[in-house]
Amino acid sequence: MLKAYKCLYRKYPDIMIFTHEIESFLEEDLGYNDVSCKLVPERNVEATIFAKEDCTLAGLDIAAAIFEYFGINYSTEHEDGEMLSQGGIIFSLSGSSLSILRAERLTLNFLGHLCGIATNTRKCVDIARKHSDVRIACTRKTTPGIRRYEKMAVIAGGGDPHRFNLTDTIMIKDNHVKLMGVEGAIMSAKQKAGFTQKIEVEVESTADAIHAARSGADIIMLDNMEPSEVTDTIDRLREENIPEHVIIEVSGGINMENLNDYAKTGADVISMGSLIHRSRWIDISLEITE
Amino acid sequence: MLKAYKCLYRKYPDIMIFTHEIESFLEEDLGYNDVSCKLVPERNVEATIFAKEDCTLAGLDIAAAIFEYFGINYSTEHEDGEMLSQGGIIFSLSGSSLSILRAERLTLNFLGHLCGIATNTRKCVDIARKHSDVRIACTRKTTPGIRRYEKMAVIAGGGDPHRFNLTDTIMIKDNHVKLMGVEGAIMSAKQKAGFTQKIEVEVESTADAIHAARSGADIIMLDNMEPSEVTDTIDRLREENIPEHVIIEVSGGINMENLNDYAKTGADVISMGSLIHRSRWIDISLEITE
Amino acid sequence: MLKAYKCLYRKYPDIMIFTHEIESFLEEDLGYNDVSCKLVPERNVEATIFAKEDCTLAGLDIAAAIFEYFGINYSTEHEDGEMLSQGGIIFSLSGSSLSILRAERLTLNFLGHLCGIATNTRKCVDIARKHSDVRIACTRKTTPGIRRYEKMAVIAGGGDPHRFNLTDTIMIKDNHVKLMGVEGAIMSAKQKAGFTQKIEVEVESTADAIHAARSGADIIMLDNMEPSEVTDTIDRLREENIPEHVIIEVSGGINMENLNDYAKTGADVISMGSLIHRSRWIDISLEITE
Amino acid sequence: MLKAYKCLYRKYPDIMIFTHEIESFLEEDLGYNDVSCKLVPERNVEATIFAKEDCTLAGLDIAAAIFEYFGINYSTEHEDGEMLSQGGIIFSLSGSSLSILRAERLTLNFLGHLCGIATNTRKCVDIARKHSDVRIACTRKTTPGIRRYEKMAVIAGGGDPHRFNLTDTIMIKDNHVKLMGVEGAIMSAKQKAGFTQKIEVEVESTADAIHAARSGADIIMLDNMEPSEVTDTIDRLREENIPEHVIIEVSGGINMENLNDYAKTGADVISMGSLIHRSRWIDISLEITE
Amino acid sequence: MLKAYKCLYRKYPDIMIFTHEIESFLEEDLGYNDVSCKLVPERNVEATIFAKEDCTLAGLDIAAAIFEYFGINYSTEHEDGEMLSQGGIIFSLSGSSLSILRAERLTLNFLGHLCGIATNTRKCVDIARKHSDVRIACTRKTTPGIRRYEKMAVIAGGGDPHRFNLTDTIMIKDNHVKLMGVEGAIMSAKQKAGFTQKIEVEVESTADAIHAARSGADIIMLDNMEPSEVTDTIDRLREENIPEHVIIEVSGGINMENLNDYAKTGADVISMGSLIHRSRWIDISLEITE
Amino acid sequence: MLKAYKCLYRKYPDIMIFTHEIESFLEEDLGYNDVSCKLVPERNVEATIFAKEDCTLAGLDIAAAIFEYFGINYSTEHEDGEMLSQGGIIFSLSGSSLSILRAERLTLNFLGHLCGIATNTRKCVDIARKHSDVRIACTRKTTPGIRRYEKMAVIAGGGDPHRFNLTDTIMIKDNHVKLMGVEGAIMSAKQKAGFTQKIEVEVESTADAIHAARSGADIIMLDNMEPSEVTDTIDRLREENIPEHVIIEVSGGINMENLNDYAKTGADVISMGSLIHRSRWIDISLEITE
Repeated sequence: MLKAYKCLYRKYPDIMIFTHEIESFLEEDLGYNDVSCKLVPERNVEATIFAKEDCTLAGLDIAAAIFEYFGINYSTEHEDGEMLSQGGIIFSLSGSSLSILRAERLTLNFLGHLCGIATNTRKCVDIARKHSDVRIACTRKTTPGIRRYEKMAVIAGGGDPHRFNLTDTIMIKDNHVKLMGVEGAIMSAKQKAGFTQKIEVEVESTADAIHAARSGADIIMLDNMEPSEVTDTIDRLREENIPEHVIIEVSGGINMENLNDYAKTGADVISMGSLIHRSRWIDISLEITE
Repeated sequence: MLKAYKCLYRKYPDIMIFTHEIESFLEEDLGYNDVSCKLVPERNVEATIFAKEDCTLAGLDIAAAIFEYFGINYSTEHEDGEMLSQGGIIFSLSGSSLSILRAERLTLNFLGHLCGIATNTRKCVDIARKHSDVRIACTRKTTPGIRRYEKMAVIAGGGDPHRFNLTDTIMIKDNHVKLMGVEGAIMSAKQKAGFTQKIEVEVESTADAIHAARSGADIIMLDNMEPSEVTDTIDRLREENIPEHVIIEVSGGINMENLNDYAKTGADVISMGSLIHRSRWIDISLEITE
Repeated sequence: MLKAYKCLYRKYPDIMIFTHEIESFLEEDLGYNDVSCKLVPERNVEATIFAKEDCTLAGLDIAAAIFEYFGINYSTEHEDGEMLSQGGIIFSLSGSSLSILRAERLTLNFLGHLCGIATNTRKCVDIARKHSDVRIACTRKTTPGIRRYEKMAVIAGGGDPHRFNLTDTIMIKDNHVKLMGVEGAIMSAKQKAGFTQKIEVEVESTADAIHAARSGADIIMLDNMEPSEVTDTIDRLREENIPEHVIIEVSGGINMENLNDYAKTGADVISMGSLIHRSRWIDISLEITE
Repeated sequence: MLKAYKCLYRKYPDIMIFTHEIESFLEEDLGYNDVSCKLVPERNVEATIFAKEDCTLAGLDIAAAIFEYFGINYSTEHEDGEMLSQGGIIFSLSGSSLSILRAERLTLNFLGHLCGIATNTRKCVDIARKHSDVRIACTRKTTPGIRRYEKMAVIAGGGDPHRFNLTDTIMIKDNHVKLMGVEGAIMSAKQKAGFTQKIEVEVESTADAIHAARSGADIIMLDNMEPSEVTDTIDRLREENIPEHVIIEVSGGINMENLNDYAKTGADVISMGSLIHRSRWIDISLEITE
Repeated sequence: MLKAYKCLYRKYPDIMIFTHEIESFLEEDLGYNDVSCKLVPERNVEATIFAKEDCTLAGLDIAAAIFEYFGINYSTEHEDGEMLSQGGIIFSLSGSSLSILRAERLTLNFLGHLCGIATNTRKCVDIARKHSDVRIACTRKTTPGIRRYEKMAVIAGGGDPHRFNLTDTIMIKDNHVKLMGVEGAIMSAKQKAGFTQKIEVEVESTADAIHAARSGADIIMLDNMEPSEVTDTIDRLREENIPEHVIIEVSGGINMENLNDYAKTGADVISMGSLIHRSRWIDISLEITE
Repeated sequence: MLKAYKCLYRKYPDIMIFTHEIESFLEEDLGYNDVSCKLVPERNVEATIFAKEDCTLAGLDIAAAIFEYFGINYSTEHEDGEMLSQGGIIFSLSGSSLSILRAERLTLNFLGHLCGIATNTRKCVDIARKHSDVRIACTRKTTPGIRRYEKMAVIAGGGDPHRFNLTDTIMIKDNHVKLMGVEGAIMSAKQKAGFTQKIEVEVESTADAIHAARSGADIIMLDNMEPSEVTDTIDRLREENIPEHVIIEVSGGINMENLNDYAKTGADVISMGSLIHRSRWIDISLEITE
């Protein structure tokens, strides 16, 4: 008898996974007339899903939701964010051979992709944590249609999801600044923003960073600055006694190679689109064991 | 005045892109109350989308469809599959600043991801073409929800899309063979298959490859064989005078490093999930020029 | 206690039937305020679904999926493709009277229509089988929205589903041939096709059939030929030693009257849109037995 | 230059046809990678859609909506309900060859099916009209998913659409009557019904018909009665001085053979599921005229 | 152990509530990463949903459907249409704390809004019932997207749902009358209407009301008339011996203040958009009791 | 010729309104066979939409989107948030009479409901502004399915939209506090929150408010406090020198009657579910002017 999944999907997943989503993903993969499934008689089988390389886990909720959709029994001893060594078993399954074969590719595509993002994120977080408590955040550079899953995978890897869409944080960009100046743009944003929305300003110079802090920005993003320039700017902001809650984010051209340097600057957040768009899938397999 | 897109979306795209798809992708990115867009007055602007690194183009149809959705004028001198040098302009745009800002992230997310796949595919195809006419194919290891776009990007890169879903080609796998033998499984498949479906058999030995060929498989997939084993198997198949139309595919653990060796084996098709799942995004930007 | 459905829907249907599909069909039929259901008190009832005329069964999976949606217990001793005599019981049901009444019309509409197609197909297959092993295939002439069910009904009747959509087989038609010649069109198709896609060519003369075979077509469709012309063409193709795997399909104006003549020609496949579009519903009823 | 469609879709169709509907029908037919369309260069063409047999037209609005979706210019000199002789042109088209090829099958599938229903209905109406003004109505026996189009086709053929779903008319059936009696059931229905809903009662005897009329039914459906029994019942109802607005419907086993007999009975409505489920497609073709 | 809901949703709700609807409402409220739910450990809790003011109940089916979606156990001793005093418990719940918190807002938003409509309707019905049996009906003035639920709430409050959409009853309005006269418009409507559709005519004078009755309207709507004018018109119609089944509806500017006067006129139906659009939410809360 | 809408929908609406949304709202209202539209001949007409009472405008974007969907020409001299006097014209329209009739009810239902919310909000804002700059915010108590439109209407009325869903701001509620204490809950939230999410804490005492401020909450919500208690708490917080950016929100039982008292307390935000759920529709009409 299989043990129950520690964090049972239907009861309390970290993320709601809707029936209509699972169905639309399945429709893409199955077509209508799956002849190979009819070649051998239906029977009950057992199977395991395991990792063929070390990784950080993500996507267990969506895998569990797919199993529930097909009525496949599943158990796991893991949860999102745990590290797993090569050969480690993610899920033990039992159920109809046909259902398991139909669930296989979609499940593995999600797990491979999402564990890849979590693993990549975890690497970056570990590099940065050697130097400071800086948060490693992703961006809106996500694969169209599955942003919610990719951001959850970043969280699983110890990263920060950053804003989800154009609405939930207000971002003042260079072309706003060009037209209205830093203060003008922030004033206007404060007037138009809801009180639950933070206001973030993208600046390219120390001077603008100080203007932004004085004008009441919640988050100051230092864009495309060298690490030394970041350090200088943060020093100047400290001298200016900017309020403690103001968050300094650095962004632009940061990768695994130069991450060390940025992690030492004292910034609060380093955002990297590459957490997602330079990740590669973890090799995960399903094996019918019986 | 902008030149018209050579391959105008609405008139004749390679792939149909539906309004409801564009809307669901946009909903994910926009939220409901995009305050930053209201900070500066709406005006007409010009913009370009350009590549910040050498790449093979893909996804132009979906970009064009997004522009049309927003009523943005666009032109391009390129089409899917062309190679573009760093700095090359993919699209010239003109239209409402608000619309261009709203279209920006979704368009770039698609172009970055799909050009990444096309570029990765093109590299593999070029490696292989030094040795033979072998086709480089992707698999069903695709990102859930956007398989159709990813497969089109593989085609743009000179690759082969392989089967789309479980229905359009019949794949006989090891567990079928275990239970029924190669001949038995193929006989059963031929009976159950529609006449338009090809039958592919996954084999792990030369002996099974020969059985498969004799039993009338359309495609024989040599799974996880060393290059030399592939060459031997193909030699043996030639000696057996298997019909010319039978396609030999090799698969399993093939990557950019050992691709040379497999390309010399005489196989007809090399399939690599990594065309998609080890690709990384191309860095593509939108710049408002006016 | 009801026996379980031999081929339990949730566990292993031949075709995936999605919740959102069932719901959209039900919405069409139910409206919002079904007064007549409230006239009598809810109670548990038993019911049977039976055929009022001889037929070949199809659509049992979708009926089972509707029952499961409503929580109706069901059992059957039959499966798709079996022949049933007038009066034969297809399903035994037990459950809430209200649920059974709500499920009734949608279930019967599917069963009536799909058994009609299966029965019509079976008749044609039986006629043809007297003469040869020729396959009887349907076409893309299907009712918009339910092609997947109609093609499964053709399979249930012993027929062949032919290609599902414009993608899964490449069809070269007369206007391609006019512009590029048979060889040119096939060469071009082979270059553009994926290796899993078969290439079919529509020809109207023996000469073109031979050109097509020599150029490597997988399927040659003899369009609108008289039976004698078909026989002659097939003889000529045999003389030419065309590869064994090449499939000869005949199509155009074939009906139950002249099917005998075409079945004798030696063609591999006879395709008839009329399997679906000239079928008529089988009379199937639901009776509450209490 | 093409003449405009007399009854321009976007401006004033009889039935609203939604973009998302057209897209879901197209997705079914097109797949993702339509190779045959790329074999010949895109160009502007002219085409006609014409009937290969005499028919009554239906479905012109949905055809027009498909043309508009693809940006195909179209004109017609006809409208739903007109009779067309063999060879008659339904639509003249001009536009992109690729778009016309992609629109072709869906358009013809709709026109073939819907003109089939309209033509079948028209035949029944014409038979009945020789004897009386009786209306010929369809039922809820419709193909799942396209009821709205099928009912409009019945209207085009001169028929009556009957109720659309379980909500818009209240139908008291035999099992209601068994449990509550005719009067009881009607009393209960009147209480629960909205004032815009008509109440219809299904009866199997003259006695029950009279009870129903006295209890205030709006429509009395004589189920499975012989023509003579119908005549007798109607005579008795006249003697009872039932209110003029009460409608007498006959139903059950009525077909083209015995329709004459029922048309003479004096019933107001004859309902026949066979208008739809025994109809067969009209043969309609698209020809590229260049 | 919780008692079962008297009118168990899955088994026999008055209104079908579809999974895809619940999911789309939940998506609106939940977003993707519900951090506050993760602050405290998941555990089983009990909860009650109760009314903080006297009200008439509505929406219990949709609440039950939401509970079922989340796997929350629920029981109730009430049903739609019952009156509940301040403090009365609507539902007792037990289940996962996380699921109950996720279900809370959507459930309360529906119950608050729908009980508000039912309570408002009940008040109007009670006022009217002091004078006559007149029905109190709502109109098509409903909140976009949830008409079916709002109309069911009107029914729960003792009101009449009136027609659901433009199709299920034919309404002849002033501009029809202007162009064609009352008789002309009714004649034309009778020809075009299905026999299950009632024909309603909007008139502004006694004379037109009489014309309408003579021409065979099923419902005559006296628009914007003073109560005395309504009484006069009804008297005149009685003198004319209009058929008993003809329904007299009054509408236009009727509110809780002047409702008494209209209820005395002898009209059959009073329709008031304000049943819905002037209702206000009932204050309903969820309390975790354990 | 109509003037163009100042804030043209397709070009730059404040809120994206998707085709599929408009279609689903229209489907609800239209049904399939709108007989009354066919009674009079289609012709071009002019029409105005005007307010029958003073109001604050909202929903103009969605009205414009509906007009565009139907190809109706429209112009307006107003925009969301403007006040309009009784009789003021909101839109001037010209186009097909059938299209205008089909668009009418949906447009008016949105405008009536949303202008009602904006007008109600504006009243509360005006009351509060007499005393302070306090913001008036709505809550998640919104009508299921149209939250985005209702929140935009609150903004149009000068209010604040508050958080959109459970994800975009973290709310620590009483049951969190009970289990973990204020500091514990905030610490935990800060760890789990993304850096773009604000953390709001619901407190019921001055002591807890101070704890919350010291622990780093971004927003402190004083729940169900009397105005004097609010003033005292704010005084104490000032004495504690809490950071300037910390926002004090009051909530619970605030209505138009006691709003004055809360507006004087010095709170930054007053949140009132009643902005939406006690609003009533503005009476708005469409008149065909020819």
